[in-house]
Amino acid sequence: MATDQARSDASETDTYEQFEARVQRISNVGNAAGILRWDQEVVMPDEGTPARAQQLSTLSSLSHELLTADETGELLSTLESDTLDEDATAVVREIRRRYDRETSVPQDLVEEISATASNAHPKWKQAKEADDFDHFAPTLEKLVALKREYANHIDPDADPYAVLFADYEPYIDLGTAERVLERLRETLVPLIDAVQDSDAALATDAFAGEFDDDDQEALARDVLDSLGYDWNRGRIDTAPHPFSSGTQFDARVTTRFEPADLLGSLTSTIHEFGHANYTLGLPDEGYATPLGEARDLSVHESQSRLWENHVGRSRPFWEHFLPIARERFPELEDVTPEEAYEAANQVYDDNLIRVEADELTYHLHIVIRFEIERDLIRGDLEVSEVPEVWNDKYEEYLGVRPDTDAEGCLQDIHWSHGDFGYFPTYSLGSVLASQLYAAAEDDCGEFDDDIREGEFAELNGWLRENIHRHGKRYVTPDLIEQATGEELTADYFLEYVESKYGDLYDLDGY
Amino acid sequence: MATDQARSDASETDTYEQFEARVQRISNVGNAAGILRWDQEVVMPDEGTPARAQQLSTLSSLSHELLTADETGELLSTLESDTLDEDATAVVREIRRRYDRETSVPQDLVEEISATASNAHPKWKQAKEADDFDHFAPTLEKLVALKREYANHIDPDADPYAVLFADYEPYIDLGTAERVLERLRETLVPLIDAVQDSDAALATDAFAGEFDDDDQEALARDVLDSLGYDWNRGRIDTAPHPFSSGTQFDARVTTRFEPADLLGSLTSTIHEFGHANYTLGLPDEGYATPLGEARDLSVHESQSRLWENHVGRSRPFWEHFLPIARERFPELEDVTPEEAYEAANQVYDDNLIRVEADELTYHLHIVIRFEIERDLIRGDLEVSEVPEVWNDKYEEYLGVRPDTDAEGCLQDIHWSHGDFGYFPTYSLGSVLASQLYAAAEDDCGEFDDDIREGEFAELNGWLRENIHRHGKRYVTPDLIEQATGEELTADYFLEYVESKYGDLYDLDGY
Repeated sequence: MATDQARSDASETDTYEQFEARVQRISNVGNAAGILRWDQEVVMPDEGTPARAQQLSTLSSLSHELLTADETGELLSTLESDTLDEDATAVVREIRRRYDRETSVPQDLVEEISATASNAHPKWKQAKEADDFDHFAPTLEKLVALKREYANHIDPDADPYAVLFADYEPYIDLGTAERVLERLRETLVPLIDAVQDSDAALATDAFAGEFDDDDQEALARDVLDSLGYDWNRGRIDTAPHPFSSGTQFDARVTTRFEPADLLGSLTSTIHEFGHANYTLGLPDEGYATPLGEARDLSVHESQSRLWENHVGRSRPFWEHFLPIARERFPELEDVTPEEAYEAANQVYDDNLIRVEADELTYHLHIVIRFEIERDLIRGDLEVSEVPEVWNDKYEEYLGVRPDTDAEGCLQDIHWSHGDFGYFPTYSLGSVLASQLYAAAEDDCGEFDDDIREGEFAELNGWLRENIHRHGKRYVTPDLIEQATGEELTADYFLEYVESKYGDLYDLDGY
Repeated sequence: MATDQARSDASETDTYEQFEARVQRISNVGNAAGILRWDQEVVMPDEGTPARAQQLSTLSSLSHELLTADETGELLSTLESDTLDEDATAVVREIRRRYDRETSVPQDLVEEISATASNAHPKWKQAKEADDFDHFAPTLEKLVALKREYANHIDPDADPYAVLFADYEPYIDLGTAERVLERLRETLVPLIDAVQDSDAALATDAFAGEFDDDDQEALARDVLDSLGYDWNRGRIDTAPHPFSSGTQFDARVTTRFEPADLLGSLTSTIHEFGHANYTLGLPDEGYATPLGEARDLSVHESQSRLWENHVGRSRPFWEHFLPIARERFPELEDVTPEEAYEAANQVYDDNLIRVEADELTYHLHIVIRFEIERDLIRGDLEVSEVPEVWNDKYEEYLGVRPDTDAEGCLQDIHWSHGDFGYFPTYSLGSVLASQLYAAAEDDCGEFDDDIREGEFAELNGWLRENIHRHGKRYVTPDLIEQATGEELTADYFLEYVESKYGDLYDLDGY
């Protein structure tokens, strides 16, 4: 019996090793593609596109073939009937999920969506430039239809929007996301009303002026130094749309520099630091398996928002960082930390553009997109109705009405990529950031003094311990529950903004 | 009958399209790996290596599997029994060659060579640092044995060195290469003797001094501008060991800047321009097939050497370029074009190091390596004898004897990679460069006046027309014959150096 057991264990190990080798191959192809995309955004010469598109398409189809091969299915089935340890169980769970989804959608539909999205991008761009929604509408209709078809292949009995949402956020159910977004709308609409009615005059021009690009770059390096970025495993470059990408061995940040927007560049750098810092906290030994890969979009965004907002837009941060900024920009000599803090937290009362929004109004931009894309995918809204519904919602929730579709429903790139279900993860990320920050303070005490001293090790240690090192070991609700003792909740975010903006804008009842 | 013929044509087309799609996949995986290697050398953070090694290994094994799959063999056999046009025939010929070689070597031997070479690299580095050949000798013995075994799998009846040489230079037979190298040795040894005996005092300190890195970079961009580099499809960066890489859509140059070596940086930049310029001349429509890929190492090196030596080390080039260099470096104001020309062409009489050699002695460094590695692989020389044979040959051919193995047989990285048969292609490249340059002048007239005016379009047009645009359409001897009307010959190179150095050093009888 003992021998039989040993033999059976050995064969399980062999099967698992084969499976793991396959998973690592798939992951390495994906990571190679990540480097190619970084290169394309950051350093590739203009005319490199045709070759790069073919290289990326080849890697993507190789990865798909490796994942959906019969061997993968057989290995999964064998392993699922075995007793595995917690880590192996998690790896099997994550790959099973991808395997089931990718094998359920016919490859020609995947290719049609990809081709349609490629053509949609220039259409959307032209439509936006010409403020002509009708130019984009037929393509958007086609994308909606194709993505409904795609969702139907994955689960014909499910709400198609829930299926699409699960592409970006597999383990938070849509019901939870909807409840969170609804609470944001209910609470933020009156809060923003109050802010807009407030007589408080914030010092908003602390960073007015023109700031040299090279000095901005030096300051971006200062802020990354200060936050503890590991330069042996990272770098900073510029990109038109800042992003971060990579692995635990090499997690890179990009940012942008505009002479008149020093604050925008800094907050963007801190945001991307948050993403890269998560990646760098993933365990080395899990590289190229789900155990060394980040949880999904909402958790990733929680990390960027935590550093951007809870740290980078806090009072003590500006007490710490303003003297450093003055070294690079002596013209900031007369700015006080309080003025910097106010400038970093002003609420705009007439902003129509999501990517220019403040921390408060941002989420209503998201709620609007969420409500519209959900209704589109469910068939409750026609594409032709989008501009009017968009404008009505902006008026209702934010008190502003776009004059053009270019500054309205054509402003974002996401739908032209066929990305329906992505937007909610931005707000879920902010909500989770607040919940994690509160839990960390609960465990470690308030971080204000640390931040004032430029000490981020304890906060980051808590994040490493409770989030980063787990990779995809736990499904998202379990990860959140273990880290914070609670389900995902908007409570902490709402508490945070009500207290912060109630104070900043001197609001009655907040 | 007509219908049958049409059906047969259609099926041939289908087969060829399937084959071409397969070839493109293999090529795209290789090009993706090329980007990853560029990234590793140029921008990757220090600690990125473990992940990068896995990514590259995955891409390499995927490429191997695609190439050696049964389907590739079946497509090749089918197509070889069909009547194909010239282009398709060339693609089939090139892939057949790779298929036969890769399928004839067992994968575990390939992996053993790769693992041994990986371990050999640090051993070689340590041995070089400690000047301790014995530390490297056992690993070198193992590599020699493994590469002999490798050659034996490919062709048990052939000279194993000829088989290895064909990995780098598949279509020039080793006999031709040997004859060329022998003529170089016979002619250059007495020529260098004469130079060393000459009383001529060249102005060698035209570029003495310290030159700022940023200004050197600006000047590197100037020289690339001047030569007509296409910045929309290229870029320049620094790397410890300059190289160029990429495709016709994106061919990048690297160089290095040392304050005390302005001239070395410039010639390195021009050399790498020559490689990238070849790549950029490959036809767009052949991308990811042999028709859009460069011929092998000797032809590639002919392009870099032609620009480095025939252009960049010429008198008229310095008449053109010195005024541009003076804009960046006013301290060059008093240098004359003739002094710059002499500095760029001085022959060192005590140099032991290949990569620091001048245009003349360089080839004796190559001849020595060639003779030693050939005898090692043929079993006519023991690894333990290498240091003494090396030193003896240096004394005999170059009149200098290394005091240490670090500056002797341990100086180059190639053997630690298991690269035996690579060295000759450097000299074949120079020889071919001269032959091509002579043929181009034969067709277009002398280029001196053009170069003096900074006009390189006619020369480059000739290279585009006669070399670049053909990709791998013709085997190398045919390509050379069609471009120059002759077989590969050392005549033009020897004529060129005898005339140039006879003149510079005022030599009797030259």
